[in-house]
Amino acid sequence: MPNPTAAMLVIGDEILSGRTRDANMHHLAGQLTESGIDLKEVRVVSDDAPAIIAAVRALSGAFEHVFTSGGIGPTHDDITADCIAAAFDVPIDVRDDARALLQAHYDRSGQELNTARLRMARIPDGATLIENPVSTAPGFILRNVYVMAGVPSVFQAMVASVLPTLTGGAPLLSRTLRVVRGEGDIAGPLSDFAQEFTDLSVGSYPFFKDGVHGSNIVVRGSDANRLSVAMDALGALFSE
Amino acid sequence: MPNPTAAMLVIGDEILSGRTRDANMHHLAGQLTESGIDLKEVRVVSDDAPAIIAAVRALSGAFEHVFTSGGIGPTHDDITADCIAAAFDVPIDVRDDARALLQAHYDRSGQELNTARLRMARIPDGATLIENPVSTAPGFILRNVYVMAGVPSVFQAMVASVLPTLTGGAPLLSRTLRVVRGEGDIAGPLSDFAQEFTDLSVGSYPFFKDGVHGSNIVVRGSDANRLSVAMDALGALFSE
Repeated sequence: MPNPTAAMLVIGDEILSGRTRDANMHHLAGQLTESGIDLKEVRVVSDDAPAIIAAVRALSGAFEHVFTSGGIGPTHDDITADCIAAAFDVPIDVRDDARALLQAHYDRSGQELNTARLRMARIPDGATLIENPVSTAPGFILRNVYVMAGVPSVFQAMVASVLPTLTGGAPLLSRTLRVVRGEGDIAGPLSDFAQEFTDLSVGSYPFFKDGVHGSNIVVRGSDANRLSVAMDALGALFSE
Repeated sequence: MPNPTAAMLVIGDEILSGRTRDANMHHLAGQLTESGIDLKEVRVVSDDAPAIIAAVRALSGAFEHVFTSGGIGPTHDDITADCIAAAFDVPIDVRDDARALLQAHYDRSGQELNTARLRMARIPDGATLIENPVSTAPGFILRNVYVMAGVPSVFQAMVASVLPTLTGGAPLLSRTLRVVRGEGDIAGPLSDFAQEFTDLSVGSYPFFKDGVHGSNIVVRGSDANRLSVAMDALGALFSE
């Protein structure tokens, strides 16, 4: 059975303007690979309702799981929750359980649960909360969409609580052979090799380092034995 | 007149599997912001022809410029050039000027321009070459799509040669006010502020650092005077 498929939607002007370098995509990609869920596409869109709504609809229709990051804080530019509700045409309002979490958090810290903070308790109808052990304000799951924070420490905590609940396939394993030859030299035999191992994915990534010109050949698959057979064949093919 | 719009398409399994952390998106985002071109969307797709073709068509129809990175090397998994040709339904073959560039390069280095390397001279009909001062194999421009390499040093060199040829708007300037107060505290007055300066974009980004809980308020716009007025007002609003 093929692995489940997933997409990610990164929401935020700060990524597209170059102000912030996104870290969540790389983190999620690694975690999904370990879980045997195939990340097929990532989109980054700005804090713009029509763009977010269109992307949520497209990705949620095309893939089994969609993970979003960003736009669930208390400020006026945090519009993700409302956009998710709009994408699925469901109502959204402050929800009692989310409000109670925030109330307890701000009571502990002696701060006021004001109108702005209460925005973080706006949850679309029918959603399940995702725990936030870092700063309390929850994420949520609606249909096949997992809505999480953009702050990397919070995003990572939410991913850690969500991933164990998903049924993944066999983890995708990868093995790398480093060859000190340019891609143009190895491309012919490597193409033949890839056609012999069509059940594996074979990629080649050039490097130039310390004056050395070489290629990292990466073979990916979920069957460890089959990977070993392939790596032996690859080693024989490119033995120096 | 509004700034021209742009999208980026990152092509490569190595990003989606988490093996490689993409660096090109952040680089391009910063360069476009300086050039007064608004990056509106980024997509990352795998080395899969239907996915690449669909993304090229969607982005090229929706935005004024599309920049791609990845998949133009000599190995079997480098399928970008063929996908761009397919997306626009134009023929593709080895082109004489691209072959001559490669021939000269490999003659200089005493290597053979073999079948695999010759793949890098496959250029869709009607495209214009993009110079590659790092490793010679060219990128190309077809319609509104700029096809560039994934290796960061090559990508950056190609961006540097392409951007000056594009007509941008006024560069997007940004100013940041660091406030040692949580987002929930500032969200109310910040929302009023954003409504007073609707010609500027106002974002808020929380930070937790060394036990301190605060917010970076970022104001973006292309009119330096207007930004100064806004920052003065913001400073008065959040003076400690």
